[in-house]
Amino acid sequence: MKDEPDFIAALRALATSPAARGLQDDAAVLELGSETLILTHDMMVEGMHYLPDQDMADVAWKLVAVNLSDLAAKGAEPLGVLLGYMLGDDNERFLKGLQEALESFAVPLLGGDTVSGGPARSFGLTALGRATHCPVPARYGAQAGDTLWVTGPLGAAMLGFEALRDGTGADSTAFRRPAPLLAEGRALAPLVSAMMDISDGLLLDSWRLATASDVSLMLDPALIPVADPVRFGECIRWGDDYQLLFTLPAGAKPPCPAIRIGRVEAENFAPLWLGEEILTPSDSLGYIHHQPD
Amino acid sequence: MKDEPDFIAALRALATSPAARGLQDDAAVLELGSETLILTHDMMVEGMHYLPDQDMADVAWKLVAVNLSDLAAKGAEPLGVLLGYMLGDDNERFLKGLQEALESFAVPLLGGDTVSGGPARSFGLTALGRATHCPVPARYGAQAGDTLWVTGPLGAAMLGFEALRDGTGADSTAFRRPAPLLAEGRALAPLVSAMMDISDGLLLDSWRLATASDVSLMLDPALIPVADPVRFGECIRWGDDYQLLFTLPAGAKPPCPAIRIGRVEAENFAPLWLGEEILTPSDSLGYIHHQPD
Repeated sequence: MKDEPDFIAALRALATSPAARGLQDDAAVLELGSETLILTHDMMVEGMHYLPDQDMADVAWKLVAVNLSDLAAKGAEPLGVLLGYMLGDDNERFLKGLQEALESFAVPLLGGDTVSGGPARSFGLTALGRATHCPVPARYGAQAGDTLWVTGPLGAAMLGFEALRDGTGADSTAFRRPAPLLAEGRALAPLVSAMMDISDGLLLDSWRLATASDVSLMLDPALIPVADPVRFGECIRWGDDYQLLFTLPAGAKPPCPAIRIGRVEAENFAPLWLGEEILTPSDSLGYIHHQPD
Repeated sequence: MKDEPDFIAALRALATSPAARGLQDDAAVLELGSETLILTHDMMVEGMHYLPDQDMADVAWKLVAVNLSDLAAKGAEPLGVLLGYMLGDDNERFLKGLQEALESFAVPLLGGDTVSGGPARSFGLTALGRATHCPVPARYGAQAGDTLWVTGPLGAAMLGFEALRDGTGADSTAFRRPAPLLAEGRALAPLVSAMMDISDGLLLDSWRLATASDVSLMLDPALIPVADPVRFGECIRWGDDYQLLFTLPAGAKPPCPAIRIGRVEAENFAPLWLGEEILTPSDSLGYIHHQPD
């Protein structure tokens, strides 16, 4: 059992609490007293999730942002974060980016741990939030007849990553400083039948939403907004954009800017269609992870 | 700013929420609705916190146990954990120890993240609990006239570590499989004036309790229980025993097995006394961390 899918399958067998949602959702959902807690934890590893020479201020920002994006997908209000930090030569820059992210998203630092180690360095962050609407949106719940939406264009992070890697001078903000769509997630939570954030690419994450909901998603390629139409196929497979993907009952309108990209049908021959084409996981639906080196 | 104390000082300046307790306590304490949440996050790094050839089942166990020990020090009931896991060659063993720990302590796995990386590998765990008594015990709160107690002997983990490192065949359980004193912490929470778990050695952690409470702790060397009296000085400086250290108002009796090891006086010439001797941080109060290699 050396690869990630096997390990995660074994881990799922341990995560029997309903709050864990079978480890198949963006976050854990735990009812406690009169509140519903949303909990998520993501790691970032040097050389895997960021370029080894990247500004640590951007790494800190992204570590906060990707976790808060999971809260956004649940319509949650952030309550705080805990940081697992591995010391290095550039602690000031990390602190700078951390401070900027915490202030930008108005989320308090609650605690954590600091260790020595690396290279390669690794970091972890846990984000805690409270649900603003119950039932809490999930990847499951999409119904035949629903419409499928995305909050913005895909592929911007890909272009930003390439600009940074190649030093072209083009704007790399979308890759370095993603913004968790917290306000959008809260506005959408009461309306959506299913929702998730797109961290691993539109196609792969659409596949996950479809299979979690036991439906077929019919994506219309003419409607999908991308950052670079010439590279459409890459834009819809690259991750890191952190747009929200959601379904609405027929006739419902989103309360925030969003683009309709398809519809939900009863489960048919395949979970995922792009126009007339059936997509399968062997089509490389998403980049497992763009390894920088 | 390359060393840990400077970094943590800077981090404290960011952690302005009262829930963070200035990053000076065992865990964050967050009031939410009718409940009070307790949150903690600890990391373990290969070669720093465990021997590189150690059984990963023991590493998984300890990762859970050390975090739950922080909850124990707050008298909290565990609600769940989130795991940050770096894949390796021995995922089955890690899962085995994780399962054993989760079952032993009756705590659910709620979520987390799995990444590639290493060596050296690193792991993070976040534990979430609910307070069973308010006010929640803290490192501060000890009062002149209180008595000072510990739940059990110090130095057992040191002997276990040496047995494991040197392959002597002696019992290494205390180092490999510490037990968080959850029941003891809950029983003590309504009674103590201050409490913490001893992770970094009796002397260093006593220093922290004393300075957090603005008192002087007078430790009686004749009363302190140690695993090896011949090595008394090492036993009271080595960490990893996860006993609870607490103070009680004069005359109060602990509701669980515990040994009285001293008394609390108004702040005098120094925060920490061992018999007639004043101890200062330059006396090497605790091992920063026993680095195995």
